[in-house]
Amino acid sequence: MITKMDWLTTPVAELNEEIEEAAKQHQLILTKPAGSLGRLEEVAILLAAMQGINKPVVANVHCTIFAADHGVALEGVSAFPQVVTGEMIKNFASGGAAICVLTNSIDAKLEVINLGTVNELGALNGVKNNILGPGAANFAQKPAMNDEQLSRAMAVGRQAVERAKLDKCDVFIGGDMGIANTTSATAIACALLDLKPESLAGPGTGLDVNGVNHKANVIARALILHKERTGTPLGILQCVGGFEIAALVGAYITCAQIGVPALVDGFITSSAALIACRLVPGVEKWLLYSHTSAEPGHRLMLEALNAKPLLDLNMRLGEGSGAATAVPILQLACKLHNEMASFAEASVSNKD
Amino acid sequence: MITKMDWLTTPVAELNEEIEEAAKQHQLILTKPAGSLGRLEEVAILLAAMQGINKPVVANVHCTIFAADHGVALEGVSAFPQVVTGEMIKNFASGGAAICVLTNSIDAKLEVINLGTVNELGALNGVKNNILGPGAANFAQKPAMNDEQLSRAMAVGRQAVERAKLDKCDVFIGGDMGIANTTSATAIACALLDLKPESLAGPGTGLDVNGVNHKANVIARALILHKERTGTPLGILQCVGGFEIAALVGAYITCAQIGVPALVDGFITSSAALIACRLVPGVEKWLLYSHTSAEPGHRLMLEALNAKPLLDLNMRLGEGSGAATAVPILQLACKLHNEMASFAEASVSNKD
Repeated sequence: MITKMDWLTTPVAELNEEIEEAAKQHQLILTKPAGSLGRLEEVAILLAAMQGINKPVVANVHCTIFAADHGVALEGVSAFPQVVTGEMIKNFASGGAAICVLTNSIDAKLEVINLGTVNELGALNGVKNNILGPGAANFAQKPAMNDEQLSRAMAVGRQAVERAKLDKCDVFIGGDMGIANTTSATAIACALLDLKPESLAGPGTGLDVNGVNHKANVIARALILHKERTGTPLGILQCVGGFEIAALVGAYITCAQIGVPALVDGFITSSAALIACRLVPGVEKWLLYSHTSAEPGHRLMLEALNAKPLLDLNMRLGEGSGAATAVPILQLACKLHNEMASFAEASVSNKD
Repeated sequence: MITKMDWLTTPVAELNEEIEEAAKQHQLILTKPAGSLGRLEEVAILLAAMQGINKPVVANVHCTIFAADHGVALEGVSAFPQVVTGEMIKNFASGGAAICVLTNSIDAKLEVINLGTVNELGALNGVKNNILGPGAANFAQKPAMNDEQLSRAMAVGRQAVERAKLDKCDVFIGGDMGIANTTSATAIACALLDLKPESLAGPGTGLDVNGVNHKANVIARALILHKERTGTPLGILQCVGGFEIAALVGAYITCAQIGVPALVDGFITSSAALIACRLVPGVEKWLLYSHTSAEPGHRLMLEALNAKPLLDLNMRLGEGSGAATAVPILQLACKLHNEMASFAEASVSNKD
């Protein structure tokens, strides 16, 4: 396994501290009370430091949705039938899903990658096939992925970011689709943060209280089953993750290594961000957080990531939808930073 | 006074309940778990009900900044010198202020109205002059406005919304500029909500702790001075308000009367919204809230308004900047509502 993943040892790129400092100073001369644009100032400064340019820009946004099925769906942990993963991949292809409307509205590029569903979908216009199997295995019974699947899934994420970088992408968004993947994300966070499943499991796409309890029990049993192999982030990912989550881990690590700002979406993507940050030190420097999910466990994950998302709109859809919704905020932050007049330029008096 | 303000007795327009119900049903058939777009669903439904159309739209946005000086600045309640009000009006005219960059970025129409500054500015390209005097009077000594000024200021706000409506505006934003106007807004909220100035006064453009205490003392003394006349919302507005705040009150009331959704900005505009809602029942139905200000007293105002703003980005600039920043969120909410595929259209299975 390790032979194929030697790219994991590549160090992360550094943020440009000189430009970061210049951006901080620049904010102070703009015609507004210092700090009065709040998070918009912080985001512009951070993007300047990540992009290494004085005038940060969020014009070319890439969004890649990684989609795959989860065998653990067979345990009855989702409110929707498993066939929906494949149906939604078709919906992404035909432009009817939320993320299609959002990326179209914000003029972002949308890429959809199918890593494997229970029903073969065949070739679909607008969908890349990187099929690793008919979905991850049921982790209530065995590891979700074998070595080969884990390594290939992470490489799929890596390659998506490399393509985005070649296209001079300003910000990368990873999205997810996979029925039962909140179960997988919850299991990852519980294993990594040593939390009880009942403190983290939530309704996902719409479970009732009994459903959530059952989900927590399935996770608790699985964590016992895999306890010999969940001592490392990669072991956790392999045992209770999924193809699309592993791809997201590969994507975030690559963003940090090749210097592409990543805008993290919600619950599923945060579980991938947790793995990525534990696996490769410094990945956290390249992650921006878009929104706080309505999935209750997300707050615990965000705390562990030391993340302060920009939005809190009670969203819980995945697909990259929360991240896409936050893109205009990043864009406005950059425009304010780049286009406002200074006190001197506008002949406005500064604070006494 | 009352003779000139008989328009205040006009009832507010009704939201279209039939369309609201249809919008709620429509959200349930879109390809996502019910409720998973959170506040975006709520906002789309509300805009449909306000606009009375099945496909709500936020394409034509009008932003009017009402600017005026405050005599109470003489009490040393602001971190910036009073001359900044006029200087910023010029900055609005020349396009260098935050709200100029924001409205330009979101393709909104920006109108600037000068209601009176201590230094005469004369004619400025892109600024409408409705001069009611050299700013409101120092309310630490006398009522901020006389009857004539109050009535005319409110009419200026009314007319701005009437112009926006003639231009088929989808959403109206009122902005504010006026050195010392957090002092005025704080005094209004204290009088209206029966709160102590020390529980509501904040740093505004950047006061230190001593400055905030002094500001609270100035307000406390003023509320005692005016206590015979602050038993009504209009009395409060006249005694401790300001020209731009009175214009905003007139604007919000008019939005509700002629059926234009108003997107409320931050601290100053919320004090105007409080007056408007107390003055004319039902105004609250037409107000959307954009953001929670970093000015600490804003949370108490929002509570009194039963408002749940969309954003919380630690902004505290005014000018309508928080509202302009929230416009893309409204736009994305509408596009999702209007353009997503239904389960039937996309052949996606619904919840079990």
